Amino acid sequence: MPTINGERLLGDLRRIADFGRYQTGVHRPHLSPQDVESRHWLVARMKEAGLEPVIDGIGTVIGKSPKTGPRILIGSHSDTQPRGGWLDGVMGVIYGLEVARALAEDPETAHLAVDVASWADEEGHWGQMTGSRSFIGIFSEADIDKAKHRDEGTPMREALKAAGLEGVPREHLEEGRYRGYLEAHIEQGGLLEVDEKRIGIVTAIVGIMQFRLTFSGIQNHAGTTPMPIRKDAGVAMMRLYNDVMDKFPAVSGPRSVWTVGKMVLEPGAPAIVPGRAEMVLQFRDADYKVLQAFEAKLMEIVADHQKNSPCKVECVNLSRTQPLVMDERFLEAIEESAAVHASEKHMRMPSGAGHDAQVIGLKMPAAMMFVPSIGGISHHFTENTHDADIVLGCQVFADATAKILKGN
Amino acid sequence: MPTINGERLLGDLRRIADFGRYQTGVHRPHLSPQDVESRHWLVARMKEAGLEPVIDGIGTVIGKSPKTGPRILIGSHSDTQPRGGWLDGVMGVIYGLEVARALAEDPETAHLAVDVASWADEEGHWGQMTGSRSFIGIFSEADIDKAKHRDEGTPMREALKAAGLEGVPREHLEEGRYRGYLEAHIEQGGLLEVDEKRIGIVTAIVGIMQFRLTFSGIQNHAGTTPMPIRKDAGVAMMRLYNDVMDKFPAVSGPRSVWTVGKMVLEPGAPAIVPGRAEMVLQFRDADYKVLQAFEAKLMEIVADHQKNSPCKVECVNLSRTQPLVMDERFLEAIEESAAVHASEKHMRMPSGAGHDAQVIGLKMPAAMMFVPSIGGISHHFTENTHDADIVLGCQVFADATAKILKGN
Repeated sequence: MPTINGERLLGDLRRIADFGRYQTGVHRPHLSPQDVESRHWLVARMKEAGLEPVIDGIGTVIGKSPKTGPRILIGSHSDTQPRGGWLDGVMGVIYGLEVARALAEDPETAHLAVDVASWADEEGHWGQMTGSRSFIGIFSEADIDKAKHRDEGTPMREALKAAGLEGVPREHLEEGRYRGYLEAHIEQGGLLEVDEKRIGIVTAIVGIMQFRLTFSGIQNHAGTTPMPIRKDAGVAMMRLYNDVMDKFPAVSGPRSVWTVGKMVLEPGAPAIVPGRAEMVLQFRDADYKVLQAFEAKLMEIVADHQKNSPCKVECVNLSRTQPLVMDERFLEAIEESAAVHASEKHMRMPSGAGHDAQVIGLKMPAAMMFVPSIGGISHHFTENTHDADIVLGCQVFADATAKILKGN
Repeated sequence: MPTINGERLLGDLRRIADFGRYQTGVHRPHLSPQDVESRHWLVARMKEAGLEPVIDGIGTVIGKSPKTGPRILIGSHSDTQPRGGWLDGVMGVIYGLEVARALAEDPETAHLAVDVASWADEEGHWGQMTGSRSFIGIFSEADIDKAKHRDEGTPMREALKAAGLEGVPREHLEEGRYRGYLEAHIEQGGLLEVDEKRIGIVTAIVGIMQFRLTFSGIQNHAGTTPMPIRKDAGVAMMRLYNDVMDKFPAVSGPRSVWTVGKMVLEPGAPAIVPGRAEMVLQFRDADYKVLQAFEAKLMEIVADHQKNSPCKVECVNLSRTQPLVMDERFLEAIEESAAVHASEKHMRMPSGAGHDAQVIGLKMPAAMMFVPSIGGISHHFTENTHDADIVLGCQVFADATAKILKGN
């Protein structure tokens, strides 16, 4: 069985955290200067590992193994949320790199081929998992033409040009090249820690539906517009959000979550009645039927407000992703490796977060593995995982990869 | 009686609208490059009118008359809200300029002294009516040191330096110099239009209380944090805002207004449970007792949420201004002039908006006059007033000024 090098693994993780370091975390949104630098560093590290890496036309880094033997694809993402953590999701990329190195260093596994990818924009600054979707052919040139930065509105084309990627070809999946896809990630929740487990074996990734709600009223002076005749877009938004929070529990599954993470008032001045307001609502569940029930409930709420709100209420779907069930044979391989290295400290669990595996998994067998997040914190610069858990996770992941590649 | 020059008046108004023109309106926040340019243009126009103008150390433009005869101060502001209207409040400044010119051109009134001011920052980008407050001595050097741009956080000192005003002395009211203060403004509401009046005689200016509410929760991943253990600062804000909208009507006066014009979620990404949220709530009434009742109700709501919200709730008072009652003799002078030029088309009314008159009025007799806003629109680039109303208003204002200066 291959043996990973814990020091090399942690060293690479600490080194790449220099690109966009923010307090104890990292600010490295896709195609930011720091993100682009980090991708060039990744390319260099992959070359040293004997891979043949490229940065493709959307910013995905993929390092291909020149070996011929049975082949697997290991990937994750090295872009981050704004002021996010140092391990989400670059840990999975460096795991892939370390697994490729460890397998190459072990005569028993040296013939096995591991390709390693850092998918562009998993955190969705330009769309939704645009890198992995591009790779499997469901993000077109026309989609790139349309894509704008979710906050700044910069066209993706401009950002790609600034990153030196204008006209660079995009990598696409070669049918039949891989036995399957593996992805490792920090849990981003507190379940492993609470249950005192060190390895999470992901049974399914939740589906996500996302909607933009816009409210159009009349912008006016906050001192001279009598309350009865106001069309305050901020009040309209707040009232609808209140209904969502009151009515969603009735259709919720045991693990469902729903969130408004973004809300904007225009023009956003204290002395002006807002003329326009916007919020983004998303909900997640591993059962698509639950997502459909949420959507139906939302439509019911929106229709009610469209009838009764003084403002114009619009609701646009931004995305719908199906939950993805993981490959059972892969899960067993991870489970067996976990049993060897972590004795009983492993458990099966769904992923509440979306991951590139749910995209790549549409085209080949896929599985994911989690390591614990301290305090369950993520999408924040204080996110962290114990070094021992990072190292243990990589060893389990390497064994599982070898098992899957050696199996018939 | 002096006769104003309508073409000259409208020409000046159209010319100054070039500084920061935005669609049919103007974007000219205090100390923006366009604002600074417009102040230099004003200085030149005041010189041509025989005044002795300066731009003082906070950005106020004041043009003093060299004449000795009884003296009045006419002022308003030439800064605007973001993407605001072309007349709010520069119309009152150009009225002052035109009145000074008209009085100087009429032998009967040529000896009367009119000083004209464009007060800095009436729209409160740096504080609250910082220009007029500076003029009467209630905005200190230390206040300037502390002042930051309400949206961008830029220190006022930096902006003053960029505007070339570093080290420039501030103008201060000379006790006894003036018989009083007059200010003209667009109504910014729809009452005059609805009642088919052309002149509004302002009996009082409402008082305003403003509070910042901040909500601190725990920022986390929107997919992996179970609903029961979330501390979502955005939900906490929305729930409190909802209570305000439900409970304020019970303590409202007939013309009270309350508004949340600014709301922020941090970090503001769709896939992140907000860790921090902030909103600014303001309420206005011409009766201070009503404002106190609103404040008491708000404190009650805040205390309730501090007890029951999963998030930390804080409430900070940003400002409290007293309502100001206008000088009756001045109101009568405006009323008599309106009767001559607008026959019955004038009415008395309170001002729901705050104005520099409520600051200057703390130190001397003051009065205000309104002209109608088309559709009652203001604080928006579509704000407008019929040319005929602009010209009529200035004539009424000139007569009233002459009356006040000639009276004993």
